[in-house]
Amino acid sequence: MRQAGRYMAEYRSLRERYSLLDICRTPDLATEVTLQPVRKIEVDAAILFSDLLLPLEPMGLPFDFIRGEGPQIERPISSVGDIDALRRFEPRESLSHVLTAIRQIQVALGGRVPLIGFAGAPFTLATYLVEGGASRDYRHTKALMHGDPGAWNALMARLVHAVAATLREQIAAGADAVQLFDSWVGTLSPADYRAHVLPHMRTLFAALPAGTPTIHFGTGTGGLLEALRAAGGDVIGLDWRVDLDAAWARVGHDVAVQGNLDPAALLAPIPEIRARAAAILDQAAGRPGHVFNLGHGVLPDTPVDHARALVDAVHELSRR
Amino acid sequence: MRQAGRYMAEYRSLRERYSLLDICRTPDLATEVTLQPVRKIEVDAAILFSDLLLPLEPMGLPFDFIRGEGPQIERPISSVGDIDALRRFEPRESLSHVLTAIRQIQVALGGRVPLIGFAGAPFTLATYLVEGGASRDYRHTKALMHGDPGAWNALMARLVHAVAATLREQIAAGADAVQLFDSWVGTLSPADYRAHVLPHMRTLFAALPAGTPTIHFGTGTGGLLEALRAAGGDVIGLDWRVDLDAAWARVGHDVAVQGNLDPAALLAPIPEIRARAAAILDQAAGRPGHVFNLGHGVLPDTPVDHARALVDAVHELSRR
Repeated sequence: MRQAGRYMAEYRSLRERYSLLDICRTPDLATEVTLQPVRKIEVDAAILFSDLLLPLEPMGLPFDFIRGEGPQIERPISSVGDIDALRRFEPRESLSHVLTAIRQIQVALGGRVPLIGFAGAPFTLATYLVEGGASRDYRHTKALMHGDPGAWNALMARLVHAVAATLREQIAAGADAVQLFDSWVGTLSPADYRAHVLPHMRTLFAALPAGTPTIHFGTGTGGLLEALRAAGGDVIGLDWRVDLDAAWARVGHDVAVQGNLDPAALLAPIPEIRARAAAILDQAAGRPGHVFNLGHGVLPDTPVDHARALVDAVHELSRR
Repeated sequence: MRQAGRYMAEYRSLRERYSLLDICRTPDLATEVTLQPVRKIEVDAAILFSDLLLPLEPMGLPFDFIRGEGPQIERPISSVGDIDALRRFEPRESLSHVLTAIRQIQVALGGRVPLIGFAGAPFTLATYLVEGGASRDYRHTKALMHGDPGAWNALMARLVHAVAATLREQIAAGADAVQLFDSWVGTLSPADYRAHVLPHMRTLFAALPAGTPTIHFGTGTGGLLEALRAAGGDVIGLDWRVDLDAAWARVGHDVAVQGNLDPAALLAPIPEIRARAAAILDQAAGRPGHVFNLGHGVLPDTPVDHARALVDAVHELSRR
């Protein structure tokens, strides 16, 4: 997830003057905000500060963030005609600001830490396109998937094309790894995932260049882990709702995993945070291929010294 | 979950005149609404129409349902003093309307189908008490649990006492089985569940009379199934985010399971609903102890003939 956020004073100060989308669309601002957590809490990798909805506008679907309600798509998709009308776009033109930001960030980082690019996965993008914003039950998305599989597959194919093109350009611009956020995929039954999402994810992973590590992230995926692994990715993201040890055994030890601290644990006293980091590292111990990470984004009321204490604890305990 | 709801015209018509709480607190209305789905879609058991927040008011925490926002507790818990101030109550007095409804429903049912009573589980009740209403991340609940385990255990002990007393009285009044709804427990890491919830659930199940079946329900529990089973219950609820077959193997075939159709599947065309019911029954086949059920509540825009078609399909396919 985004490493910068309202828990950091530097970020809050910028957000007084600029919207989230202003920052994502202005390379100098995206560069600054991407670097803030590298400087402040000394994470081991920078994550491109961006938003998974950026490809929507070049596809012909303008949107905005409504205060307190999240993203709102002006004209959500409701027919096969809407899907046919989605525009194919060339990320080098339409998302050139993101690619410029990647180049600038890499210059600023100077090789100190790698830079992770990212995009929303097709299913999660589809939920926004169809629901028009956030959702609790994804009823319209599922109604389309269950009621008109042909239209659903056409929509997913468009999104696979857009996401693959976007990630290829991020890699060409210098991203050292890329992360695919299937944030809301945990709402699906394993059978629905296998029938209606997995084949599209395979196509997407196959369309990315070999040699650049890919991270496959989702939340609420306790029943989907084997299927996510089958769909692809060099690293499988594990949120905090699964035991790291049991989950890694389920996806297989021949794939890497990322996770899995509950972001809410950063509200606990620092000794408790250290104990929780140690418990995760213990479960991963003796095996290469674990990327320590929160299971989702940093909560806005997280004290910044708690975030820093977590990074310090992981560094210190990993060295032992 | 509640079987009646906005998808039924009879229910909508009553809700024009009465609030949700009016219905829960008026035995004649609760009886009528509990019976509506038995008459209309011919389910195999009636579920007491009630709300898991009903014990809050006798504990000294008034609340109301705000349109579009869900429940709102007037004075959420924020200190040890607030926990100490929670009132112990006698369900025979404070929840007598619920017990009267149970007796009336049993008379009306006349033994045709059993009646399932219900209560919210202590963790889920605690989230409402601490957050003051619904939540996305349960940050205050987790901050209390992680930051002051003593206070957390005191709160859970109070809730265990209240819930156990409530369920014992429901059973004494005639409930044939009882369901414990730990609706939001899926937000917890397995380690947190085992440390901060499981011991309290064991105490609660041990406080219920032997001989009345208990159903232990949660959602988003794909990483918690083994722990839920260890906590107790004759039947473990499985939402739709896990494969029934794999999940049953994980909880053990010596316990019964309930589930596991996605409520959103009822928005699909009827042949598709039948196919999905068949797929679940196939996974359960050849083994006693599966209770067919939705993984959560019926969505408000579900066509009532789709709900009826599901019940018919389950009856027809189970007979084969």
